[in-house]
Amino acid sequence: MEDAELEGYRGDTLRLLKDAGAKNGSTIHVAGRDGFEYSGILIPRYSHADANHIVIKLRSGYNIGVATENVASIRVIRDSIIFETPAVSIQPGVASSKRHVLLLSTGGTIASKVDYRTGAVKPALTAEDLYSSIPELSDIALITPEVIFSLYSENLEMTHWQALSSRIASAENQKVDGIVVMIGTDTMGYTSAALSFALIGYSKTVVFVGSQRSSDRPSSDSAVNLKAAVRFAAFSGSRGVFVAMHENTSDDVVSIHSAVRVRKNHTSRRDAFQSIDTFPVAQVRGDEIHMRDSHEDRSREDAAVKLKTKFDANVALVKFHPGFDALLIEILSKECKMRGLIIEGTGLGHVSSRTVDVISKLTMRGIFVGIASQCIWGRTDLNVYDTGRDLLRAGAVPLDNMLSETALAKLSWALANFPASATKEMMSRNLIGEITPRVSVE
Amino acid sequence: MEDAELEGYRGDTLRLLKDAGAKNGSTIHVAGRDGFEYSGILIPRYSHADANHIVIKLRSGYNIGVATENVASIRVIRDSIIFETPAVSIQPGVASSKRHVLLLSTGGTIASKVDYRTGAVKPALTAEDLYSSIPELSDIALITPEVIFSLYSENLEMTHWQALSSRIASAENQKVDGIVVMIGTDTMGYTSAALSFALIGYSKTVVFVGSQRSSDRPSSDSAVNLKAAVRFAAFSGSRGVFVAMHENTSDDVVSIHSAVRVRKNHTSRRDAFQSIDTFPVAQVRGDEIHMRDSHEDRSREDAAVKLKTKFDANVALVKFHPGFDALLIEILSKECKMRGLIIEGTGLGHVSSRTVDVISKLTMRGIFVGIASQCIWGRTDLNVYDTGRDLLRAGAVPLDNMLSETALAKLSWALANFPASATKEMMSRNLIGEITPRVSVE
Repeated sequence: MEDAELEGYRGDTLRLLKDAGAKNGSTIHVAGRDGFEYSGILIPRYSHADANHIVIKLRSGYNIGVATENVASIRVIRDSIIFETPAVSIQPGVASSKRHVLLLSTGGTIASKVDYRTGAVKPALTAEDLYSSIPELSDIALITPEVIFSLYSENLEMTHWQALSSRIASAENQKVDGIVVMIGTDTMGYTSAALSFALIGYSKTVVFVGSQRSSDRPSSDSAVNLKAAVRFAAFSGSRGVFVAMHENTSDDVVSIHSAVRVRKNHTSRRDAFQSIDTFPVAQVRGDEIHMRDSHEDRSREDAAVKLKTKFDANVALVKFHPGFDALLIEILSKECKMRGLIIEGTGLGHVSSRTVDVISKLTMRGIFVGIASQCIWGRTDLNVYDTGRDLLRAGAVPLDNMLSETALAKLSWALANFPASATKEMMSRNLIGEITPRVSVE
Repeated sequence: MEDAELEGYRGDTLRLLKDAGAKNGSTIHVAGRDGFEYSGILIPRYSHADANHIVIKLRSGYNIGVATENVASIRVIRDSIIFETPAVSIQPGVASSKRHVLLLSTGGTIASKVDYRTGAVKPALTAEDLYSSIPELSDIALITPEVIFSLYSENLEMTHWQALSSRIASAENQKVDGIVVMIGTDTMGYTSAALSFALIGYSKTVVFVGSQRSSDRPSSDSAVNLKAAVRFAAFSGSRGVFVAMHENTSDDVVSIHSAVRVRKNHTSRRDAFQSIDTFPVAQVRGDEIHMRDSHEDRSREDAAVKLKTKFDANVALVKFHPGFDALLIEILSKECKMRGLIIEGTGLGHVSSRTVDVISKLTMRGIFVGIASQCIWGRTDLNVYDTGRDLLRAGAVPLDNMLSETALAKLSWALANFPASATKEMMSRNLIGEITPRVSVE
C-alpha cells in the first residue's frame, strides 16, 4: 500500500503520517517517547529503504531517521518550506520574459536519456530538445540554447574548461542576463571551480546545473534543477559561478552553492552536492530566490586577474596513503611533464618522511607542490607536527581549507595565465572565497 | 566574559543559555521564532567561532547552529545524554579489576606531548608513561602496556600492519580480555581496516584509539578516548576491530566505530571520525557501554580466512580527476611493481575513456583493478552508463560502497594471503561488514 503524497512510506509508518495529515515536503514536528523533539521537512523514502523510520530533513541540511516505534506524536507545522537564514525574496514579476538566459549544453545526465534497447543512459538530448521538453522555462526567461559538447563529464579536460570559458567570456557583450551550463555531475565540482577562476571579473551570473537521474525517469531532478538554475541566472544579479542542485530528496528546494566550495559527496542521491565548511549561497524555492545575506564577492573586481581563460593540463592531484610510493610523483614530474601538483595529505596535510624528501626535489626544480587534506572538512596546518614543518622546509605550500578539487582547477588556471614566480602567492591567497574565513560554520 | 560550564559562548548567547540553566553537555530544547524546534546536546563553541550561534548536536550525530536572534525559548530537558537506539547497558560491576587489557602503543598524538622549545608536538610518551598519567585506567582493568613503535601514523606502512597483526595474533593465548592500540589518527582508518582483515576469526576485542589534541593540552581528548577504548576492550565481549573516538565536541561520549566503515572527515575536530553509510557500533558514556543491537559479526568464523596476518606493499590508491594522465597507472604497474590498484572514480565509479583503455591493459597482465568512488558516501554502480559498462568489459571490479581506504587495506591483505585467482572474488564479497547491506541508513 503506497500513497503518492507519502512516497516510499509503508505500514505503520505510513498510517502514522497519514493520521497526522503529513505529506512529503511538509514541515513536521516529531516528539519522541524519550523526550526528544525535532522539526524538519518530511522527505520521501527510497523504495529499498526499511519501513520503520520517518526521515526528516533538518534545517542544517542533514537528514535524520526517527524510528517509528519511538514516535510519541507528529504535528504538521506547515506545508511549505522555510529557509534557514534571514532571506531576501526576489520576485520575478510580470516583466520576466524580458530576462534572457544563454543555455549551454555540454552533455551529462541532464542532457541524456535511457536507451531502451540496452538500458544504459546515453548523452542524447540537445539543449534545444531539453528546452522544448520543459516548456515552463520560457515562462521564466527568454532562452537561447546552444550545444557546446556532448560528453560525459568524466571525459571533460582542461581543453574543455578553456573552450567553455572562452564561449562564456564572449557572451560578456551579448544581450543576456545570465548563463546556465548543463553538465554531468561527476566532475561538475572541478569544472565549475575552474570556470570560477577563469571568469573572475565577469559581469553576469553563471550557473552550472546537472541531474542525478535522467529526465525520462519519474524520480528525475533535471527539470527542477534546470528551472532553478535558469531563475537564478536570470534574476539573482549575483556575479560569480554557482552550482544549482537539489537541496534534499524532495522536489521543492534547490541549493545554490559557491562553485569553489561545493563537492559531490554521494554517488547517487539527488542531494549529493554539499557546500563544505560553509552554507550554500542561496536557495531557490519555486519562483522565489532566497539569498543568504552573508554572500559577497569582494575580490571579483581585481582587474589584474580579469577573464583569464587559459588552463594548463600539466597538473596532477595525488592522494597520499600508507604504502604510497613516492617514486610516483617523481615519475609524474619527469614522464608526464607535470608543472604543478596537489597532494591530498592525511589529517592536517601530512605525508610520509620519504615523500617529503621527494617533494623537496620537485620544488627545487620549480614544480609547485600544494598540500590539501583528504579529510574533506577542516583546514590544513603544517605548523603543529614535525612532518608539517619538514613539508614547509621542503617548499610545499599549505592550501588552508581549499578543497583539493578546487585547488587542482586553480593551479591549472594559475600556471596558464601568470608567471611561475606568482604561483605560490596566487595559490595561498583567497581570491573568490575558495578559502573560507576562520570565523565560520562549524 | 566566559563561563567554564559554557565554554566558548559569549555575550547575548551566553546570557540566554545561562538564564535557561543550560550547560555544555545538557540536552536542550530550542524553539525558534519561525516555529522550528530542535532538541540536542549543547556543545562548546570553538574560541574562534562567532558569538551569535548556539550549537547543538542532534541525535543523528550532526551539529546545527541556531542563530541567537532567532531563538524564542530554551528549555533544559536533562543533563545527561540519551543514546539514539535501543541500547543494552553493560555495567562493569565490582569485579572489574579482574579484566585484563593489553595496551599497545605505536605513536601518534595520543602518545605524544608538546616540545616547549619548538612548540611542535612530538611522539614522546611511552605506553607506560601515558598509563601512569591516567591512573583511572587501573580502575577499569588490569593494564599491560607495551611499546610497539613510536611513529607518526603517516609513516606507518604495510610492514607495520604486519608486525602489529602478528603481535596481536600472538596474544590469542595470552591471558587478556582485549587489546587497545594507541595510534596516530592520520592513518588510523587505513591501519584499523587492515587489522580487521588480518584478525578475522580472532577471539578478543581490538580497539584502536587516537587523539586529535595532545594530552598536555586542556582540550585534549586522549584521556576520555583511552578510557572508553579500554572499557570497550575489557567488557564489551565484541569480536572484531573497532575505532574509539569522541562522538561530539563535548567530553562525555565516545563512539565505537566498525574499523572497516570509519573515516577521518575533519582535519582537527575531536569528533573527526564518522561511520560512513552506517551508524557506530556502540557508544561509551562514562562507565556504560551501549551496544547497537543491530551489530553482528556474521562471517568472522570462516576458518579459511582466519588470522592471515601478511600484507603486500605492491598496491596503490589513485584518485581520478579531470586531466588525469592514464600513463601514470601504466608506469605504476611497470616501475613500481604494482600488483593491485584501487581507483577512486567519479560519481558511480567513472573514469575517462582513455583511462579505461589503460585499465584494460593492466587487467590483461593480471593486475587487479578495483573501483571505489571519490564521493565517499553511496555505492558504485557500473551498470548505469556506457563508461561503467566499458570499465566492466576492461576487467575492473566495482567495490559497491567499500571505502577506498578500506579497499586498499583489503587488497594488500588479499594479495598477500591468497592466490591471485581468488582476488576478484575476495574483493567483491562482503567479509566483515566492509560493504553495508542495501537496506540501511540514508
